[in-house]
Amino acid sequence: MVKRNVDLRSDTVTKPTEAMRAAMAIAEVDDDVLGNDPLALKLETEMAKLMGKEAALFVPSGTMGNLISVLVHCDIRGSEVILGDNSHIHVYENGGIATIGGVHSRTIKNNDDGTMDIDLIEAAIRNPKGELFFPTTRLICLENTHANSGGKCLPVEYIDKVGELATKHDLKLHIDGARIFNASIALGVSVDRLVQAADSVSVCLSKGLGAPVGSVIVGSKSFIAKAKRVRKTLGGGMRQIGILCAAALVAIKDNVPKLATDHHNAKLLASELNQINGLKVDPESVETNIIFLEIEQDSKISVESLCKNLEEHGILLMQESSSRIRIVVHHQISASDVNYTINCIKQLVCGYPLQNGY
Amino acid sequence: MVKRNVDLRSDTVTKPTEAMRAAMAIAEVDDDVLGNDPLALKLETEMAKLMGKEAALFVPSGTMGNLISVLVHCDIRGSEVILGDNSHIHVYENGGIATIGGVHSRTIKNNDDGTMDIDLIEAAIRNPKGELFFPTTRLICLENTHANSGGKCLPVEYIDKVGELATKHDLKLHIDGARIFNASIALGVSVDRLVQAADSVSVCLSKGLGAPVGSVIVGSKSFIAKAKRVRKTLGGGMRQIGILCAAALVAIKDNVPKLATDHHNAKLLASELNQINGLKVDPESVETNIIFLEIEQDSKISVESLCKNLEEHGILLMQESSSRIRIVVHHQISASDVNYTINCIKQLVCGYPLQNGY
Amino acid sequence: MVKRNVDLRSDTVTKPTEAMRAAMAIAEVDDDVLGNDPLALKLETEMAKLMGKEAALFVPSGTMGNLISVLVHCDIRGSEVILGDNSHIHVYENGGIATIGGVHSRTIKNNDDGTMDIDLIEAAIRNPKGELFFPTTRLICLENTHANSGGKCLPVEYIDKVGELATKHDLKLHIDGARIFNASIALGVSVDRLVQAADSVSVCLSKGLGAPVGSVIVGSKSFIAKAKRVRKTLGGGMRQIGILCAAALVAIKDNVPKLATDHHNAKLLASELNQINGLKVDPESVETNIIFLEIEQDSKISVESLCKNLEEHGILLMQESSSRIRIVVHHQISASDVNYTINCIKQLVCGYPLQNGY
Amino acid sequence: MVKRNVDLRSDTVTKPTEAMRAAMAIAEVDDDVLGNDPLALKLETEMAKLMGKEAALFVPSGTMGNLISVLVHCDIRGSEVILGDNSHIHVYENGGIATIGGVHSRTIKNNDDGTMDIDLIEAAIRNPKGELFFPTTRLICLENTHANSGGKCLPVEYIDKVGELATKHDLKLHIDGARIFNASIALGVSVDRLVQAADSVSVCLSKGLGAPVGSVIVGSKSFIAKAKRVRKTLGGGMRQIGILCAAALVAIKDNVPKLATDHHNAKLLASELNQINGLKVDPESVETNIIFLEIEQDSKISVESLCKNLEEHGILLMQESSSRIRIVVHHQISASDVNYTINCIKQLVCGYPLQNGY
Repeated sequence: MVKRNVDLRSDTVTKPTEAMRAAMAIAEVDDDVLGNDPLALKLETEMAKLMGKEAALFVPSGTMGNLISVLVHCDIRGSEVILGDNSHIHVYENGGIATIGGVHSRTIKNNDDGTMDIDLIEAAIRNPKGELFFPTTRLICLENTHANSGGKCLPVEYIDKVGELATKHDLKLHIDGARIFNASIALGVSVDRLVQAADSVSVCLSKGLGAPVGSVIVGSKSFIAKAKRVRKTLGGGMRQIGILCAAALVAIKDNVPKLATDHHNAKLLASELNQINGLKVDPESVETNIIFLEIEQDSKISVESLCKNLEEHGILLMQESSSRIRIVVHHQISASDVNYTINCIKQLVCGYPLQNGY
Repeated sequence: MVKRNVDLRSDTVTKPTEAMRAAMAIAEVDDDVLGNDPLALKLETEMAKLMGKEAALFVPSGTMGNLISVLVHCDIRGSEVILGDNSHIHVYENGGIATIGGVHSRTIKNNDDGTMDIDLIEAAIRNPKGELFFPTTRLICLENTHANSGGKCLPVEYIDKVGELATKHDLKLHIDGARIFNASIALGVSVDRLVQAADSVSVCLSKGLGAPVGSVIVGSKSFIAKAKRVRKTLGGGMRQIGILCAAALVAIKDNVPKLATDHHNAKLLASELNQINGLKVDPESVETNIIFLEIEQDSKISVESLCKNLEEHGILLMQESSSRIRIVVHHQISASDVNYTINCIKQLVCGYPLQNGY
Repeated sequence: MVKRNVDLRSDTVTKPTEAMRAAMAIAEVDDDVLGNDPLALKLETEMAKLMGKEAALFVPSGTMGNLISVLVHCDIRGSEVILGDNSHIHVYENGGIATIGGVHSRTIKNNDDGTMDIDLIEAAIRNPKGELFFPTTRLICLENTHANSGGKCLPVEYIDKVGELATKHDLKLHIDGARIFNASIALGVSVDRLVQAADSVSVCLSKGLGAPVGSVIVGSKSFIAKAKRVRKTLGGGMRQIGILCAAALVAIKDNVPKLATDHHNAKLLASELNQINGLKVDPESVETNIIFLEIEQDSKISVESLCKNLEEHGILLMQESSSRIRIVVHHQISASDVNYTINCIKQLVCGYPLQNGY
Repeated sequence: MVKRNVDLRSDTVTKPTEAMRAAMAIAEVDDDVLGNDPLALKLETEMAKLMGKEAALFVPSGTMGNLISVLVHCDIRGSEVILGDNSHIHVYENGGIATIGGVHSRTIKNNDDGTMDIDLIEAAIRNPKGELFFPTTRLICLENTHANSGGKCLPVEYIDKVGELATKHDLKLHIDGARIFNASIALGVSVDRLVQAADSVSVCLSKGLGAPVGSVIVGSKSFIAKAKRVRKTLGGGMRQIGILCAAALVAIKDNVPKLATDHHNAKLLASELNQINGLKVDPESVETNIIFLEIEQDSKISVESLCKNLEEHGILLMQESSSRIRIVVHHQISASDVNYTINCIKQLVCGYPLQNGY
């Protein structure tokens, strides 16, 4: 068995493809802070069209995409945002919307499928008239796919309902769509339809799409005009970003179609791992490219030692807790990598000898 | 029946007593911003001693007491506080800790008794080492009595356990003790023992204690030194506050002992109201001076019309929702006022004639 | 010579008069947070009328009055305020508008008379269209009288011109009018005329007016509605403030007329002190109730020892620096106190024996 | 005369060289958010060594480099920074340190040479002991070269003195070294020596150095550890940045030596332009690569029409005001471009015919 490099920690670890490198090598560029970079404009135009919105803006990261969006929608002091208690914005972004933006968070329990109950959202909306005691709700945030529920997809009907609620109460709706293309592919719904109800969406270029750097936020022209200024304030305005946008344009063209394969590979991996004694993962729960692998308490192997041993075989996983491992499949994980991973794990957990060919 | 003034909206509505007015009239005063007001110093010394802490500070309101405390404990950018999703700080204070202080909120579900599960608190603590993705938990907030659960008391054993947790994780513990004296009386535990585990406590003078204005925060000398500066920043430094402190000193002496009567009156009121068809209030749930009166759906009278009609009889209640009324008993509600209120409600809800004497 | 208490540190040190105490003793009160306190409403109505504005709000301090005003006018993230580099807001209020409100300061040099050059103000105004690189100017702040220039009065013509500039550029104008009544008396211009150009004014009740606690901010109804909410956020909402408002109402009635005497006493004091060898104060520079006394380098006595020695005679002054003492005259400084002070200083600085009667 | 592209708006407009593109095409990359990108680590190591500091961090822009540095040094609420009233941070960065970071600005007048008087800096330092009324100075910021004074160099002796002052008062010193290599070349002092007194420096890769994107901040290990977390909060953490770092490494190697030529070209341009009637620029004032060209009032041509006409000849300049144009020379401006520019301007301003060859 030849040792491989199988990096399953995240879909952010992909390397630029040859096509991306070629595009970067010849990318026509100019100063984007001065508004002149042609490929930035091309990427933004293309992404706006894809998402069915008026305008778009390249930003250095998904975290900045979300932060800018919340700050634009909540630009008045005393704003509150309703978001999931297990959402990426709430859990993994340093609390930036409060610590940097002074926006108050009102969290709603995220269900196992990444949704929040709509009646709970509605009950949490408050203070449109600016009463004395309360901040004013100005924004609802959804996340699709929902990372911490294992990459579950929010269905379009659900998003539409939240959108109606937002409209009814004169709120904005932001979608953290870091993996919105995964949701689109898995649900068989076009991305523009999927985010139709949203006032803004943050889309990551460097996760499943495999571009080296960046996210794009989309919304109305006036939203993007304000976003551009917040991006400058945060220091996210960059110069010859055509280099990065060239790769992103390739990523969108080449890699969106590959997401279906990623999802297939993830399901296969989940199904096989679930058959290993001491491991547990519900294959039904794997809707896209993320797997949460549970190590049962009576397993002979700990999360830590499993990860460490796999690392020696070139397989990198992400420890989530003392009983859970996160596995993320992406376009640089082949079917063969999946088999290799299954076999290595089998060997380590059950003591099975490695199959031929590995 | 003579119309009365029975203001049951809150225990903040009490008027200064004759003794308080007399004390205010002769109060020796000086400029407290310059640190010279003798009665402020006396009140702060007395309150610190009562609460078993090193030092104390008079502040204009309970909201400022809580805000200052959170800001002092979370004085470094990137701090997170763990607090109840139904706590006063989270629900009723304008989101000030975020909108003014940039502090990120991590809410835990408040149980019916005002507690948060200790294992949930522990699971929410994060990032002592300053990892990249997370804010750092620096503070846990409790509320005793817990207003939104109907004035329930957090027992000393529970607080001690949360305190141990805080110590174990090098966090601070703040208690919103707006009605800590009610808890102390109801539990039969001295206030200093009750807040022994806390690094800071905000105590309201103008709720059950009946002083016209103010709260006091207590804690270590270094906490109070920092708090004084935050008070100045917020504009809470006031000049000849001896006037207000004189009344507060009377309030502590005269009114703490009366809280037991308030609790007795609240229970009586709850028990009687519960016997009225169409109304519901669990007398067992009334531990201190707050009653949540539920109007059953098939009741002949709505919350709105009940409140409006009672107002014509001089009785003021607080509408909480379309099915719930909040009633708060205080030292200026006599046993006779309680009977009057019961009779008026009976008459309005059931059409009973008023009893003799009313 | 009998030792006296002559507190000249500030005009914030005054004690409530008998009339104030009498008014407080019988003050009708209610819960102002619930909007019911009759004397708060009376004071606010009266002050709004006096200042020629639609509405008013009682706040705990001048610092909070300024902070609320800036936060209301600059309620959108990315706001900038133009203010004097020697203004109270910039120098003495903890930087609260930035540290609490996130408002960026653009300072203009304060001239010796407390003004800022109007062309410098205009040159500093920027970014009405929200260009990428700049915050947007939303507010100009003036201070009248101007404390750090020794209580100088901004003339009404100057204020009007700044107001025109603000209007022209669609900015707001706030006046820190902590001592606006001193300016009004000294200039012989009614206060409402003096602040006619302003969108908001913060007026201190506890400086020259001699009330124990509080300031009032005035402005349009919509400004005050927003201000009330910011006051709550900061924790400045208080309960039975009728006690304090009763004293303030007396202060306005009784003490405004006495300000002329304060100014006379201050000029007398300045003139006499200027004749003492080693001391310097330009009597012409004393327009209201503040004196900056300079100790010349070759003086036989240091600022520190002069202040310390005077303290033994019951005279309190404020050390500003190693060469400057601040003296503030108020309604509880009599002509006789002024003479006593002059004589004590003469004795200490020149070794003169005390005059008869002291 | 063949029309050229001569972009003199800024040194941020340079295009990646062939060598940079080649390096990007083969750049080995990994996920920098996970800490694995090899070229990011190489660039950071190299830059730290060059600048004589322990550690370094790649950031998306100079604005973010400055923002992170100020936020790290001023991580406690209530901090104040002393900086020039004409500094880039104060004038061109959206007021982000206040609007995002809540840091209060205390500006000192920038002299014509970009310095601030050291005694004025010292006089502005305040409140080390946390007194009630004042924010606490925690940081001094310098800028070298100083853009708004026309690219003047702060001499090492001056910086050392400010560093001594900072040390004496227990403050940090940050240098906005966007063009620190220009200063180093012009002064003939190595960059590490030039920033020896600084606790942190922000160095731009995409100005004179000509890399497409990014800046680097340098400082102690603990500074950089904190900076990394702030970068994540702001959304400046990016994935496969090895692409960008590859170009930056080439930029440092290839373009630093070319800065001397830029300075020479700038002086030449200044000297020639100064001889044109109606134009004014003091050649002595051009120390590095920035020229402020003044159009005299009696000139036949306006700033606007000059810029517009030059644009038709392919020459881009930056309008600073109605009388001032900013010209910035960089490594993609050849001696021939300089001559072409001089001739075009002569033609437009004086009506001279174009010289042969243009």
